[in-house]
Amino acid sequence: MAVRLDLNISLDGVVMPSGQTAENPMGEDWDKLVSAYAATRTFRERVLHDTSGEGTTGVDDRYASAYFDGVGAEIMGAGMFGFHAFPDDEDWRGWWGDEPPFRAPVLVLTHRQRPPIEFANGTRFEFLATGPQEALARARQLAGGADVRIGGGAGVARDFLAAGLVDRLHVGIAPVVLGRGLRLWDDLRELERGYSVTSEVAESGVVHVTFAR
Amino acid sequence: MAVRLDLNISLDGVVMPSGQTAENPMGEDWDKLVSAYAATRTFRERVLHDTSGEGTTGVDDRYASAYFDGVGAEIMGAGMFGFHAFPDDEDWRGWWGDEPPFRAPVLVLTHRQRPPIEFANGTRFEFLATGPQEALARARQLAGGADVRIGGGAGVARDFLAAGLVDRLHVGIAPVVLGRGLRLWDDLRELERGYSVTSEVAESGVVHVTFAR
Repeated sequence: MAVRLDLNISLDGVVMPSGQTAENPMGEDWDKLVSAYAATRTFRERVLHDTSGEGTTGVDDRYASAYFDGVGAEIMGAGMFGFHAFPDDEDWRGWWGDEPPFRAPVLVLTHRQRPPIEFANGTRFEFLATGPQEALARARQLAGGADVRIGGGAGVARDFLAAGLVDRLHVGIAPVVLGRGLRLWDDLRELERGYSVTSEVAESGVVHVTFAR
Repeated sequence: MAVRLDLNISLDGVVMPSGQTAENPMGEDWDKLVSAYAATRTFRERVLHDTSGEGTTGVDDRYASAYFDGVGAEIMGAGMFGFHAFPDDEDWRGWWGDEPPFRAPVLVLTHRQRPPIEFANGTRFEFLATGPQEALARARQLAGGADVRIGGGAGVARDFLAAGLVDRLHVGIAPVVLGRGLRLWDDLRELERGYSVTSEVAESGVVHVTFAR
């Protein structure tokens, strides 16, 4: 049972872009990072509930599909769940509507005390005020032998990497230079130690790099 | 006639590592960046004058060979030539002994006034105190219709990229995280504009990314 982390970054390692505007709250830079992933058939099916069968089916889609396979529980930060964007909404249930794509228990790391939220498709958000190790122990319990995914955002991802808790890191590197935002690799010197690192290039130009123990 | 630049960097974009020691003046990190290139048959032939025919012959060697092909003149900084390491040696002739691998005119950007140095194999060092544009104009004259290579180091490379003077940038990304040193991509936001970007993965694990106009 592996702990997995998947991220989209730029050539200069930016994992959380800055430069958001009111018109484009994620920012144009975010679009550049995720455009190949968002174009995959898997993303369209699993996240957009688009059953047309459209979308790319090449290397990017293979990684997108693997992203959803075999995950028994997920851990994410408060920002990724949406608490920072909607701090005053006591009824906030995440960004994903009535069918969140997780279909498994999701631990949200936050100091807010909320009762769990359950969805018909198997997604269940549970709120914890713990560090990475304790959250991972709880996620392993919930995963029932399947993998645990670190969902993000950038801060949580870097915390788990720095703590040495990630068994498989996959980064999709978009062939763009952003020059601003939070960089993934800072303070992760010699991250490659203890991992085997392999890479392949997708039709889109995205370079997929995998660190596996 | 193109202006070309080839660099070895880490996943976190470090092009000039820090962490040098007296025992290892280039630093262990430098070895990590260039090990795949230094293992190629082309490098062994052209730089080490090793005529045994040993060395790798895969994707890395293809890029190494292309590095030496079709170059009519080169531009490099004072540090790459060795002026910073040997500031008091009036007779300094570069790091490369009697057979520098350039075999063409090389413009060294420096405020030191030195007469040109010529070698039997066609290498000729000429010393200029100019900015990138002027140096490039002189290099084009000397190149006789062939390509101009920006040899480095990191500062000169970044100056030419920032000035928009590079027609083809090739970076070999070693699958390591250094976490310290000078990063290539800083202040080069949207460098990809006006270029077509392609990538391929070598047997060594190095990811070769090419920006071409």
